[in-house]
Amino acid sequence: MKKHIYIYSPSSAVRDKASFKRGLKKLSAMGYEVEVDEAALTTHQRFAGDDKTRLAAIHRAASSGADIALISRGGYGLTRILPDIDYRAVANAISKGTQFVGFSDFTAFQLAVLAKTGAVTWAGPSLGEDFGAADGADDIMEACFDDLVTGQGEGSGWQLPKSAGKLVNDIKSNENTIIAESIHNISNSILWGGNLSMLTSLVGTPYMPVVKNGILFIEDVGEHPYKVERMLAQLLQAGILAQQKAIIFGQFSNYKLVPHDKGYKLASVVAWLKSNVKGLVLTGLPFGHIATKVLLPVGLSVTLAVEKRDAFLLWGHQH
Amino acid sequence: MKKHIYIYSPSSAVRDKASFKRGLKKLSAMGYEVEVDEAALTTHQRFAGDDKTRLAAIHRAASSGADIALISRGGYGLTRILPDIDYRAVANAISKGTQFVGFSDFTAFQLAVLAKTGAVTWAGPSLGEDFGAADGADDIMEACFDDLVTGQGEGSGWQLPKSAGKLVNDIKSNENTIIAESIHNISNSILWGGNLSMLTSLVGTPYMPVVKNGILFIEDVGEHPYKVERMLAQLLQAGILAQQKAIIFGQFSNYKLVPHDKGYKLASVVAWLKSNVKGLVLTGLPFGHIATKVLLPVGLSVTLAVEKRDAFLLWGHQH
Repeated sequence: MKKHIYIYSPSSAVRDKASFKRGLKKLSAMGYEVEVDEAALTTHQRFAGDDKTRLAAIHRAASSGADIALISRGGYGLTRILPDIDYRAVANAISKGTQFVGFSDFTAFQLAVLAKTGAVTWAGPSLGEDFGAADGADDIMEACFDDLVTGQGEGSGWQLPKSAGKLVNDIKSNENTIIAESIHNISNSILWGGNLSMLTSLVGTPYMPVVKNGILFIEDVGEHPYKVERMLAQLLQAGILAQQKAIIFGQFSNYKLVPHDKGYKLASVVAWLKSNVKGLVLTGLPFGHIATKVLLPVGLSVTLAVEKRDAFLLWGHQH
Repeated sequence: MKKHIYIYSPSSAVRDKASFKRGLKKLSAMGYEVEVDEAALTTHQRFAGDDKTRLAAIHRAASSGADIALISRGGYGLTRILPDIDYRAVANAISKGTQFVGFSDFTAFQLAVLAKTGAVTWAGPSLGEDFGAADGADDIMEACFDDLVTGQGEGSGWQLPKSAGKLVNDIKSNENTIIAESIHNISNSILWGGNLSMLTSLVGTPYMPVVKNGILFIEDVGEHPYKVERMLAQLLQAGILAQQKAIIFGQFSNYKLVPHDKGYKLASVVAWLKSNVKGLVLTGLPFGHIATKVLLPVGLSVTLAVEKRDAFLLWGHQH
């Protein structure tokens, strides 16, 4: 039986119809049965329909019985409807096998679901930006998505950037830590995170999960390093970063340094963070507003293994 | 005896030396004795010196005995040094008559001082952007600053925008509320606020004041209305806005609407906010990243009076 993918629009209005159509075609060509929510192309101002419309779309996705509920796109819109989402219905759908997948604005939904129910969602692609990309869907993203749908996914690995030796902090570890060949193994830690702006916008609200001894991954787009630092400072000063065993930088894309920076850059932010937390700080995770993105379970207990320049997030079979 | 103004740089590096010099000249011409901190023109990356240098500058300003401690400029830099500021020294200086004045990034300092000590600082001009403006200092800003220095200031008034009738919510009031001529009088409320991005970046940290039955004023620059809304949603969902008797929009400047907005604009955000809070929501306060700015006491008990299109924030003599 074909796997069933449900497309809906909880955030911004779909403007790029060509990408939307290409995405649907691509998913069909991959062998999936694709169902499109009745309001997926609705528009109201910058939103994919007014608040009620988008809430109803989320709840239809939850009752769709699909294997995957996939967002059409990100943008903005989930924040304002967080108080009115039926989290029990979403968690119920997840327990019955519907995996919610998305990123960017969708981070707000994912973290709220985690905070309210503990249920696991997946940080991953959107229909338009990823499956509908003008130059074709990315192979790695596609393979990771297939792995999730078929229940074959067991984890993700990536190579740490060349300055990896400097990007691995000393942490208390049961392993023998060899300086030249840093080996770290963090087990049974909840993986969580997503878009840093969205995550930070939940601090102090009932939609922010409380994750202790966790592994936090972050990405963002169009945010200058000083704004990234300011957000991390908020998480730091709120006591959230001290509770994480590891913080993993995904991709921070599409920002512009300016002459005023005078050498201040994203690496300065990473260095500043490392001097302020005891946990492991890693970079280079292939996730963010880029084509090559892995899928990551938000709210699942995982193992993080680091050996020399190889890093792995492992979660075993989920089906 | 000449009043004494101390200039220091707690945030970004001063790049515009011409504005800096014009500002010093202007203050001298106004009859003030101007003292410049030894590190005011120091630079480190995008900062006015490294963290230690800027902390030392703040503490020198606190021990200067000046009537006014005025920032050279805003930018970014206070967030990361908030944990290391000697708040007792700052509060002590304030109790001895030194008024701390500034805006933008300085909001972080002001709110942290309020949270940690309850001491009052002033949202107002900076040296370079205001006194050193290429086309001359703004008359109203200058008069308000003079009022503060001489202890003559008793409050600030402004005219509500033409849609004022719609911008005044119904609130429980001891006054007879006449629909056509809305009259509101809110007494003994703590006035607080400043730059919305900076204020929001303190949520969940020990530097966020807890102000109940307060009057919150906000401004921002270069933030699209959807980001303004997202920040207000955070304050709303964190329970902060429900505790305010009034929320006053200052100036939101230098952002760009895009075709994707399709009618969504700052007024949409104001309307959304009004539908989500019971307190008074006003607009048009002359404060923000604009030349004509009034000075506002952050942390002081004030009275807000609204009659027809006239709004007043009143605090009486402070000297």
